Amino acid sequence: MDYRQNIDGCLADKIGARGLDRGALDAMLGRTAPALEKLRRLRDDGSLPLLRLPGRKDDIAQLRRVLKTFRAAPRQKFRDVIILGTGGSSLGGQTLYALADERAQPRLHFLDNIDPATFEALFAAIDPARTGVVAISKSGGTAETMTQFAICIDWLRGKLDPDAVGRHTIAVTEPRDNPLRLLAMRLQTPILDHDPGIGGRYSVLSNVGLLPAMLAGLDVAALRAGAGETLDAALGASDPHDSAPALGAALGVGLSEQRNIGTTVILPYVDRLAHFGLWFRQLWAESLGKDGKGTTPIRAMGTVDQHSQLQLYLAGPADKMFTLVTGEVAGTGPVVAPDLASDPSLAYLTGKHMGDLLDAEQRATEQSLIRNGRPTRRFHITRLDERTLGGLLMHFMLETIIAADLLGVNAFDQPAVEEGKVIARQYLGEMGREAAQ
Amino acid sequence: MDYRQNIDGCLADKIGARGLDRGALDAMLGRTAPALEKLRRLRDDGSLPLLRLPGRKDDIAQLRRVLKTFRAAPRQKFRDVIILGTGGSSLGGQTLYALADERAQPRLHFLDNIDPATFEALFAAIDPARTGVVAISKSGGTAETMTQFAICIDWLRGKLDPDAVGRHTIAVTEPRDNPLRLLAMRLQTPILDHDPGIGGRYSVLSNVGLLPAMLAGLDVAALRAGAGETLDAALGASDPHDSAPALGAALGVGLSEQRNIGTTVILPYVDRLAHFGLWFRQLWAESLGKDGKGTTPIRAMGTVDQHSQLQLYLAGPADKMFTLVTGEVAGTGPVVAPDLASDPSLAYLTGKHMGDLLDAEQRATEQSLIRNGRPTRRFHITRLDERTLGGLLMHFMLETIIAADLLGVNAFDQPAVEEGKVIARQYLGEMGREAAQ
Repeated sequence: MDYRQNIDGCLADKIGARGLDRGALDAMLGRTAPALEKLRRLRDDGSLPLLRLPGRKDDIAQLRRVLKTFRAAPRQKFRDVIILGTGGSSLGGQTLYALADERAQPRLHFLDNIDPATFEALFAAIDPARTGVVAISKSGGTAETMTQFAICIDWLRGKLDPDAVGRHTIAVTEPRDNPLRLLAMRLQTPILDHDPGIGGRYSVLSNVGLLPAMLAGLDVAALRAGAGETLDAALGASDPHDSAPALGAALGVGLSEQRNIGTTVILPYVDRLAHFGLWFRQLWAESLGKDGKGTTPIRAMGTVDQHSQLQLYLAGPADKMFTLVTGEVAGTGPVVAPDLASDPSLAYLTGKHMGDLLDAEQRATEQSLIRNGRPTRRFHITRLDERTLGGLLMHFMLETIIAADLLGVNAFDQPAVEEGKVIARQYLGEMGREAAQ
Repeated sequence: MDYRQNIDGCLADKIGARGLDRGALDAMLGRTAPALEKLRRLRDDGSLPLLRLPGRKDDIAQLRRVLKTFRAAPRQKFRDVIILGTGGSSLGGQTLYALADERAQPRLHFLDNIDPATFEALFAAIDPARTGVVAISKSGGTAETMTQFAICIDWLRGKLDPDAVGRHTIAVTEPRDNPLRLLAMRLQTPILDHDPGIGGRYSVLSNVGLLPAMLAGLDVAALRAGAGETLDAALGASDPHDSAPALGAALGVGLSEQRNIGTTVILPYVDRLAHFGLWFRQLWAESLGKDGKGTTPIRAMGTVDQHSQLQLYLAGPADKMFTLVTGEVAGTGPVVAPDLASDPSLAYLTGKHMGDLLDAEQRATEQSLIRNGRPTRRFHITRLDERTLGGLLMHFMLETIIAADLLGVNAFDQPAVEEGKVIARQYLGEMGREAAQ
């Protein structure tokens, strides 16, 4: 495995009274045993589709076939692909796309919002004849995604032969009649099934995340292999102490219950993990934030947030746990030329790689948090590639599911957001009536 | 003023027991009187340079002269400008740049981090002969910025006549000898003074923010005029109830003290305010997070975070206050064609503008938060332009300064982050010694 979790900085041994006692951690780990046992059963009997994803190959073959429509004719080698969808239909793809070569084509544009100004700016910059559009909605009725898709189709058909629209579009949705599926059928848009048993925030390793990853030329087999290794290691451990996700969940819930930690900060020191942090933020918030429970996730970034949030983290209320995600960066990147750091106060930079400074900063922040008694966990990544990222994604999904079990909440639903959807529809309906009067 | 603050959704009258009682708000507002009085004195005697910025013109003329070097020869009409700096040296510029036309040249690239992979990708994509580099560091010794600058200069001089480097660079730093100033003098790089009395997080209306804004063709006079209007309205009010920033500060501190609100969520529904949210996040965290005090700022985005964070916001711990920033978007943007929403369940979208949906969603989220008893403030923006943004920036700087006064902390220092800088230098020094052995 090319990443390693270190939790010492969360323990009272290391950081004093704000850390968790070993005894409390052991007790909490004992409480993870039922969740681990249940996960093993769900994996073995195949009833939690997420856990079967690492071993699947059939859906990759199908994806490859469907993506051919985006590459068929020479005119249709797309320069740009717009990925429509919001929340879990988008964040997984964005997380994976961060590994792609920035110069590769097609360029992917994830539109997960509905600000008209953003759409108008993108439409002005790209050519519909060389653009594909992917719409992802599990239910097939998400108001934002359906609006986005209708508007993108209208834009495409304004410039293309109407029959061509189907070849410029792909839909991903559940295998049952729903507005997205019916519209896609009418437009002769190829459709991929969204597994009904995999919610958006757990869908990154399904075709929802793999579609953009394959468009970007990533090694999706390695991604799943890494996820499989993490899954096997997590569930294969005979002692929960040896299961990294169980350890993470026990710490998070233990610090929350016993040390009043209400906020969990994920702090990557690798720019390409910026979206990973946002993906985690949804996973954690939506899975645990119910019945008045859950802790609040924050995505920060190193080093930049040392110059924005670190003051608060070190000296504000002691209500946060930190998860640093650090890279093996010493000795990498361009070097500071000696003549440009000739000032004596810059001697410490002379001849150093940019990666040396990044490495020193990530270690210094960890030390600084620990010296100030702030619970600090670290994931150190020795090589960031598809396999490692697959492992990290699986780690955090398992950690979240186990934490939900410890808290006694359902990791897979999000009942509170329904009301807002109903109110929004009602407001839109009123606009219609006002306009008709 | 093209924005309006509405605080009703934070009051017990409206949301029940989790809101602030009118009496408590009145008492807290009374406690803002000394801060308002002090701000008036500082404005009148000119001793807080931030408050003099709205009336300044001299620095704009100077900026215009210096920026000429970036436009002098025909070869030197730059296509790209890299803005180096971190935290307050970058977030203000990013906030303003969001208003620029995305197709305008030069394109600005804000590099506020030190991941080598990010630099290498950018260097591969742009032409040094057509690129300018701006380095911003108040102290002139920020390790990240000095490393970034040295590496950018090395990249420039690898491709350019060595004498040309000065014409491709600008430095912004305090008017005293420091590493950045000395290096800039040696390279014949034009230097602009960073006002020593304006800390990074309060510098957006100084040349630190105005330089990128002017490169992007924005109306910086309107920006300052908007800030001036907000300043005059805030300090001109004879009753603190009529001072919008005092009201905001009283609410934030009142809810924290009396309702255990430890987190303040800023939730813009306008994509162009995404960076504004990050700017606020630094301002609030670094100004208030000390002596164990302060609340934790979170930048969310509508509508996308309805599909990520709203479940937690509505049904998780009741420890958050929300500030929605909404736009006048009904009737704007492309329309959902009737034939693309012919499914009966999509009837509510037929013929609607994308902006109608955005408007319905932002109002629905406000309603949903209020119905669930979550303290909710709203800024509604009728027109987002330089003048409005200038007003918003000044509002939140004043609100933060007043909140610091209520909490009894210093709004202008950040003492806790020094330790980490010392540790990082020490680690870098050790790397040097290890390498020499």
